[in-house]
Amino acid sequence: MSETPPELSGSAAVQLADDEVSALRQAGEAWSLVPRARVQTGRDFIDPDLDGREERGRPGERYLRVGRPKTQGFEHKAPGWLEATSRATAPTGDFARLRRRVRSVLLGAPLPTRDLIHERLSKVKALAVLSSDALSSVAYGPEQIVVVFVLAGAGALAFNYDLIIMGLIGWVLLSVVLSYRQTIKAYPKGGGSYIVAKDNLGTLPGLIAAAALMTDYVLTVAVSISSGIFQLTSAFPGLVSWAVPLCLLAVMLIVGGNLRGIRESGSIFAAPTYAFLVAMFAMIAFDFYRIVSGQCDHGACATLPHVGPNYPATQALASVGIFLILQAFASGCSALTGIEAVSDGVPAFKAPEWRNARTTLVCMGVLLGAMLFGIVVATHILGVRVDNPNGTNPQALLSKLATIAFGFGSLGYYFVIGSTLLILVLAANTAFSDFPRLLFFLARDNFAPHQFRRLGERLAFSNGIFVLGVLASVLIIVFGGDTSRLIPLYAIGVFLAFTMSQTGMVVRWWRRKEPSWRTSIIFNAIGATMTAVVFIVFAVVKFLEGAWVVCIIIPSFVALFMAIHRHYQEVVDHVTTEIPTSPARLKPVCIVPVAELNDVALQSLAMARTISDSVIAVHICDDEEHIARLRARWDVWGNHVPLEVLESPYRSFTRPLLRYIDAIDKQRSDDTIIIVLPELVATRWWHALLHNQTALRLKAQLLFRPGTVVISVPYHLQHAPHVRRLRRRGEARDNDDIEAI
Amino acid sequence: MSETPPELSGSAAVQLADDEVSALRQAGEAWSLVPRARVQTGRDFIDPDLDGREERGRPGERYLRVGRPKTQGFEHKAPGWLEATSRATAPTGDFARLRRRVRSVLLGAPLPTRDLIHERLSKVKALAVLSSDALSSVAYGPEQIVVVFVLAGAGALAFNYDLIIMGLIGWVLLSVVLSYRQTIKAYPKGGGSYIVAKDNLGTLPGLIAAAALMTDYVLTVAVSISSGIFQLTSAFPGLVSWAVPLCLLAVMLIVGGNLRGIRESGSIFAAPTYAFLVAMFAMIAFDFYRIVSGQCDHGACATLPHVGPNYPATQALASVGIFLILQAFASGCSALTGIEAVSDGVPAFKAPEWRNARTTLVCMGVLLGAMLFGIVVATHILGVRVDNPNGTNPQALLSKLATIAFGFGSLGYYFVIGSTLLILVLAANTAFSDFPRLLFFLARDNFAPHQFRRLGERLAFSNGIFVLGVLASVLIIVFGGDTSRLIPLYAIGVFLAFTMSQTGMVVRWWRRKEPSWRTSIIFNAIGATMTAVVFIVFAVVKFLEGAWVVCIIIPSFVALFMAIHRHYQEVVDHVTTEIPTSPARLKPVCIVPVAELNDVALQSLAMARTISDSVIAVHICDDEEHIARLRARWDVWGNHVPLEVLESPYRSFTRPLLRYIDAIDKQRSDDTIIIVLPELVATRWWHALLHNQTALRLKAQLLFRPGTVVISVPYHLQHAPHVRRLRRRGEARDNDDIEAI
Repeated sequence: MSETPPELSGSAAVQLADDEVSALRQAGEAWSLVPRARVQTGRDFIDPDLDGREERGRPGERYLRVGRPKTQGFEHKAPGWLEATSRATAPTGDFARLRRRVRSVLLGAPLPTRDLIHERLSKVKALAVLSSDALSSVAYGPEQIVVVFVLAGAGALAFNYDLIIMGLIGWVLLSVVLSYRQTIKAYPKGGGSYIVAKDNLGTLPGLIAAAALMTDYVLTVAVSISSGIFQLTSAFPGLVSWAVPLCLLAVMLIVGGNLRGIRESGSIFAAPTYAFLVAMFAMIAFDFYRIVSGQCDHGACATLPHVGPNYPATQALASVGIFLILQAFASGCSALTGIEAVSDGVPAFKAPEWRNARTTLVCMGVLLGAMLFGIVVATHILGVRVDNPNGTNPQALLSKLATIAFGFGSLGYYFVIGSTLLILVLAANTAFSDFPRLLFFLARDNFAPHQFRRLGERLAFSNGIFVLGVLASVLIIVFGGDTSRLIPLYAIGVFLAFTMSQTGMVVRWWRRKEPSWRTSIIFNAIGATMTAVVFIVFAVVKFLEGAWVVCIIIPSFVALFMAIHRHYQEVVDHVTTEIPTSPARLKPVCIVPVAELNDVALQSLAMARTISDSVIAVHICDDEEHIARLRARWDVWGNHVPLEVLESPYRSFTRPLLRYIDAIDKQRSDDTIIIVLPELVATRWWHALLHNQTALRLKAQLLFRPGTVVISVPYHLQHAPHVRRLRRRGEARDNDDIEAI
Repeated sequence: MSETPPELSGSAAVQLADDEVSALRQAGEAWSLVPRARVQTGRDFIDPDLDGREERGRPGERYLRVGRPKTQGFEHKAPGWLEATSRATAPTGDFARLRRRVRSVLLGAPLPTRDLIHERLSKVKALAVLSSDALSSVAYGPEQIVVVFVLAGAGALAFNYDLIIMGLIGWVLLSVVLSYRQTIKAYPKGGGSYIVAKDNLGTLPGLIAAAALMTDYVLTVAVSISSGIFQLTSAFPGLVSWAVPLCLLAVMLIVGGNLRGIRESGSIFAAPTYAFLVAMFAMIAFDFYRIVSGQCDHGACATLPHVGPNYPATQALASVGIFLILQAFASGCSALTGIEAVSDGVPAFKAPEWRNARTTLVCMGVLLGAMLFGIVVATHILGVRVDNPNGTNPQALLSKLATIAFGFGSLGYYFVIGSTLLILVLAANTAFSDFPRLLFFLARDNFAPHQFRRLGERLAFSNGIFVLGVLASVLIIVFGGDTSRLIPLYAIGVFLAFTMSQTGMVVRWWRRKEPSWRTSIIFNAIGATMTAVVFIVFAVVKFLEGAWVVCIIIPSFVALFMAIHRHYQEVVDHVTTEIPTSPARLKPVCIVPVAELNDVALQSLAMARTISDSVIAVHICDDEEHIARLRARWDVWGNHVPLEVLESPYRSFTRPLLRYIDAIDKQRSDDTIIIVLPELVATRWWHALLHNQTALRLKAQLLFRPGTVVISVPYHLQHAPHVRRLRRRGEARDNDDIEAI
């Protein structure tokens, strides 16, 4: 599956490399010794284009009916080029059709590849689509700064440091935004951390960035959904005990939507994002109005619920220590997740892409910074207490600020909660397009299973979507949907990816020395340093709280990527083809195991005799009476194929046969051994229990013999009422009728 | 696998039916149109007898080395007839060899079929071998009569009825023995209930008898082992809590012994059986000596433990009722199980078989009757109390009688317990030869899966042994190894089988009217009536206690047998062979799905081209760029096989291909469609996850198309270190390289 929409191009336009041409010519020469395969020669008419259909006329005569391709479900594009219409792709069985119908209702009808279109976004829409992840971080970021103190039992001390910490985070935000401005210009086709790091630092750093991002996308979903449901349970405390099921329901809905193929449509995203911005700024404004109007002074909002510094007894400053402050800083940095989305999505902008993207990035940075500062400062002045998330009925910080601004249960309050929930869901949804796309890039470069390259029926990367949904659900269940327990795992991946990406940019500028590279390299160097520092701080102060998990997962992922790559490389480089690649050199010897001389054996023998004039029938048995009887029947039949009896006194079937094949192979080392196996195709599942699975086991063994070809000649039970239904469902079960023991 | 040892017989000795000959001749005529398959023609020398081995000499010349068959592990018996020695049957891989060695240590080396010998037994040995099941019943039968009263809370009343009930059981024993004397004479080749009922009453009664016997064999194992371990825990009360694990260990040991192939060797059986007889009669004699000598009078054995009628308060006679008495009678009839063994085993006797068998049967009946009467009368006179099996540390009745006779912990006591345990284990062991043999008969008549016909490496019916072991273990676990809870399920099957068998004999005498048929028919009629009455009493009075389970299981088994029979009949009668049975009529059309024009595709194309000159390569893709490129390469190669491109805009692979095959099939309805599939054989389990399993799914679908042949052309990863090891273990995994999507 190519990433770009396919374009019709004649074979004339294709340029083949010289060595490719000479290799193909050489292969072709070996084939010139045999005539070309027939397509249309009198009686044996065969029309691969399905233009006509053979019909019986008078005896001995044949008519050709022309122009029936439509009925086959194919349409002509050129000679030797058919297009399968949706009819040819439609299921045929009753059960398959029902399943198809259910899927269509749930996910919509399958879409052809050519429907894969990319919307170009204006700056206004782009801000909505690409920044939901970043902007939604304000729902949990500021709260996490204070939660660290609360959990350490030093909640009141948070008011001594919150503004300082926010100031530091502001500087990090500034450096990240300025740094990504450089990336956008350098990668107008989209500069995700994986691509930038791989391009400039090499494969290993690229894979590290990819692994970091992947863990991070999973956490984005878990954190955003958990936080969204936390907002909801703040507004409706009765739902608290349903938090985890609600989270899982939300994940399922998002997975369903993405499997259906929700495109990143600007219109769908614009409304909730801008509603959220309006809600936030209105809330912050009203909170400051309360302060200015004196309705709610520092620590004096006792009339409002959940407000005022009523933390447990204050502790001494000494016991807080630099470690706690760094922890609060690290947690707060989770507010900066999602900024990289704009630089990933540059190609989606209207031209000039890079300039529009830059403007949007700056705009997003300013909005994010303003909201963060507004919330932290308002919280500080109002002295809003942050609840211990492990307490009974904890309230989200935003819910408290909204209560102060508009009053609990008012329209304004619900507007804040509702729009926050929505933007958090959209943020999770962003991961559902980024994670499968990253897996697609990895699969394209042979670092992930090729199944992730495959576009689903609705043109979404269904496999990646499904995997992300499962992983996020597992995380939510393990952590009980508690945002503050997920945060220590989060952000570390983001900042690792940031660092890799910015470092990659520094190397790039240094190597290329493009115009104005000096300015760019300074910005990127500052960005790389800042994010690296945050990454190290994070890894150290959060290590015991959960960061160690990520420190194990990321290298494991990298090792996995590399093992997968090695395998695919082996498939390309080290494939052995022991069978001659030209029919002129292929000399087949057929071995046919038979249990009895009946129609089943005869059809296999006929197949073998058609392929080759070197055929041996082998009968493996331990009963001399049976052997004598078969010999007599063989003689009456006419002994048209030599029969070899392998008496097996130890009643083993497979091993003597394999030894016999080895012996024949030694005699005729140049020839290709072909084993013809009659196979009973069972039509009910329990039939498989009634036959020894010898043919199946033998096939498994034979496939490992280099250069051994296996031919399955099937036979069925006539009139079995289930044949048709099962045939459609593809529930084949192999059986055998080769073993006389 | 034939039951009788195979005898060498020339093909001249085989008589074929006329219709068989004419059918074979007709099939042969169709083959005469093509030359006979070559065996030995100059350059293409092929020697199916492996007499020689082709070796390269000077270029262009070939030598033939003669006389190497030994090295291949085969020995000549006749032209076209090789015998696989143990070398040809030996495993080749390291892992397989290790497994072989472990098995040989545990179960012994594999035995050839010709080692299947049958020992002929003298009457003395036959009594030991065939009567262990019946004689061992005295270990639980007499006890069960009284247990019914104890469980109903009317233990003391047992002393009013025990002798009457024993008298009734004595009459049943007499009629069963007399009845089986007739069967032995009529069936000198062995008259199991299944065979007798099937012969004389028809298939359905035969199957009912078989189902009844099968449930019964399972219960024999469970009851005998549970009872044996009960004797053991009576002697060693510390083992009570280990009863179930001890039972399971005993079952495992017996299964192991039988898989190893313990033959019913007279010598092994004689010692424990005669030891048990000695122990029982000595114990009964000593018990009566105690009574006569006045050491222990009726109810006056207070100095001995567990003796004396200290049951809970006696209840009124009215509350006992006829129902309780019938229940006690039914439970006591479990003492009669195993009597049929002698009539099953007639062929094992020395000549004159039937007369010796009759003598042995009568002898066994007398011994069994004497022991039963002795135990019941001694119990009655001594007033031995029977323990509630649900109480703490219950003691077996035999243990109490042995205590009275020899004193608890004395040498005589342990001799009784030990010999009882041994004979119970032997009784269980009898079921392990009867159950698999019955399954073999059923499988031979196509009523059971054919796997049960198969002789294992050690000439035992391993599959049947294994199934019996599992079923008995399940029963023991479910019923907690409690004999008295198993008894309600037991014996009902025995008496149903008795009834079927005796009724069959009545019908046989009536039909045949052989000499002295009048006497025989009377004995069998009485036997049939008596056992039928016991069966009905049993079914009624034990219904709620567990007999209902058996009343469901037996008809279910019969239904299963018949369904299995129907399937095997279908395989014989309704097999469809859509592919011509003569090469003169077989016209193949090959379809080769290709993803790319590389060596893998070329070897499949070469294979197809060798088979037929009608070959089409099909490329399924949704990427027009890729299509154009393939076409260009195809042209350079020389277009030796027509290439058909199926563009699949819905990215479906299997369905358009199946539709295309359908269309080609319509064009050439007389011809055989052959699909040639290149298959990557994965060498590590996780490789299977890295490739779409398209080839595998496609094969499953294609096998259901009538008359469609599938050819697997494998290719491997070169130098993969695991190939050799995995090849030996047969861990093949199919993959694909046919899908370009």
